[in-house]
Amino acid sequence: MISSTANPYVKRIRSLAADRRERRRERIVVLEGVRLLADALASGAKIELALYDTDQLAASSAGQALLVQLAPLTQAYPATARVVAAAADTMTPQGVVALAHWPEIAPGAPGIALVIDGVQDPGNLGTLLRSAEAVGVMQVFCTSGTVDAYAPKVVRGAMGAYFRLAIGQDLSWEQVGERLANVDQIYAADASATLPYYAVDWRQRAALVIGSEAHGLSEAARSYATRLVGIPMRGQAESLNAAVAGSILLFEALRQRSLGRS
Amino acid sequence: MISSTANPYVKRIRSLAADRRERRRERIVVLEGVRLLADALASGAKIELALYDTDQLAASSAGQALLVQLAPLTQAYPATARVVAAAADTMTPQGVVALAHWPEIAPGAPGIALVIDGVQDPGNLGTLLRSAEAVGVMQVFCTSGTVDAYAPKVVRGAMGAYFRLAIGQDLSWEQVGERLANVDQIYAADASATLPYYAVDWRQRAALVIGSEAHGLSEAARSYATRLVGIPMRGQAESLNAAVAGSILLFEALRQRSLGRS
Repeated sequence: MISSTANPYVKRIRSLAADRRERRRERIVVLEGVRLLADALASGAKIELALYDTDQLAASSAGQALLVQLAPLTQAYPATARVVAAAADTMTPQGVVALAHWPEIAPGAPGIALVIDGVQDPGNLGTLLRSAEAVGVMQVFCTSGTVDAYAPKVVRGAMGAYFRLAIGQDLSWEQVGERLANVDQIYAADASATLPYYAVDWRQRAALVIGSEAHGLSEAARSYATRLVGIPMRGQAESLNAAVAGSILLFEALRQRSLGRS
Repeated sequence: MISSTANPYVKRIRSLAADRRERRRERIVVLEGVRLLADALASGAKIELALYDTDQLAASSAGQALLVQLAPLTQAYPATARVVAAAADTMTPQGVVALAHWPEIAPGAPGIALVIDGVQDPGNLGTLLRSAEAVGVMQVFCTSGTVDAYAPKVVRGAMGAYFRLAIGQDLSWEQVGERLANVDQIYAADASATLPYYAVDWRQRAALVIGSEAHGLSEAARSYATRLVGIPMRGQAESLNAAVAGSILLFEALRQRSLGRS
């Protein structure tokens, strides 16, 4: 039972939550909360370390189920509520904080690839990854200007998508272009594009590029894109949130692929 | 020039930002930021009070354009950066905070009505309102368990949608039902529904109901709904964020209405 907030495990978790370079060097992701950890374990995540508050987990049925999974792990330690809170990034850590190795996930079935080109808001990236997994995206490429896909807030937004989605990071557009050599079209979302997203045949092998919230698509993205696609709107709204726009495009691709027609 | 943070205008803005009942009694909304205020003015918002930092506004072209609009208003006062910050709800108020009267907006062209049934997160409600305006929703009804649609964080998320969208609040399901007497179908989004959202004919007069993030649809919503609709997914994700799910449904309705076919 760990009862001191000075315990080196607490320091290690805090340090990995705060430091992108350290996460990257060690290929570790910080997981907080019952649902996220249960989802990670169900998807085969390898846990390096877990601190949990037995009382808090025992208070919910989902927590009890997680306790049963954590108890036999030699790298999972019961700790006081104060210790778990000290290790956590969120205000309400739900009784468990853990470190897991970055999953090694092979690309999914050939289909849509998603390129994240400079999205800055961790909540937006998390939402995009959650939608990408939900529609069965083959793989995700994040260009080097994008927020760290393993930042704790991104991981919380993406939920278990992390452990089921192939994600490449820190890529130059040259590298992204190489990886997209086999796709038929590279569609980039752009608020001023005249081609409606639903006029595109998403049953092709295609990539979808989502630009940054503040600056839109990078020049490199525009040069690699084969077509720009837009979301027609009725109101006077100038644009949509990047995560919402990306999700609308991804679900249209799934709709067409499910129906087998556009 | 207002230079004291003890100025009664500062107190009045803070008080309205914090107190839902006061906002409701006075029918006032708090607006922060250049883009939101410019959007509100362009949509005919009536400003009751504005405090602005001339230096900060003068530093950007959008701010300069807003200055030109604010300067002739007798109810708009230049203030120090400290005063504007003291009146603001956000950490980075962008040099302007204002009070506007609730807009009186007539319902739009007959089409889709949106019912918000208990959404709790201000960011989610703001995103849903922004999407509703973007697709040309006729009007929005918020049931009484929903977060205040005039809370500052909702207003920031919705951007100018506020001043172009008819929004009813604090409604019982009985009242919502009366207002929906003329629609052909009341579709309620439900993660376990078997009817895919794209199999629905959204060219009818219809209402779309979005439930709360934590608890889904209320019992009342289920009893008023004529059909439950779901978003088919490929991955193992259990559900989508309420704002993302609602936006996907709203944009499918617009897609069908734009094409004139399903």
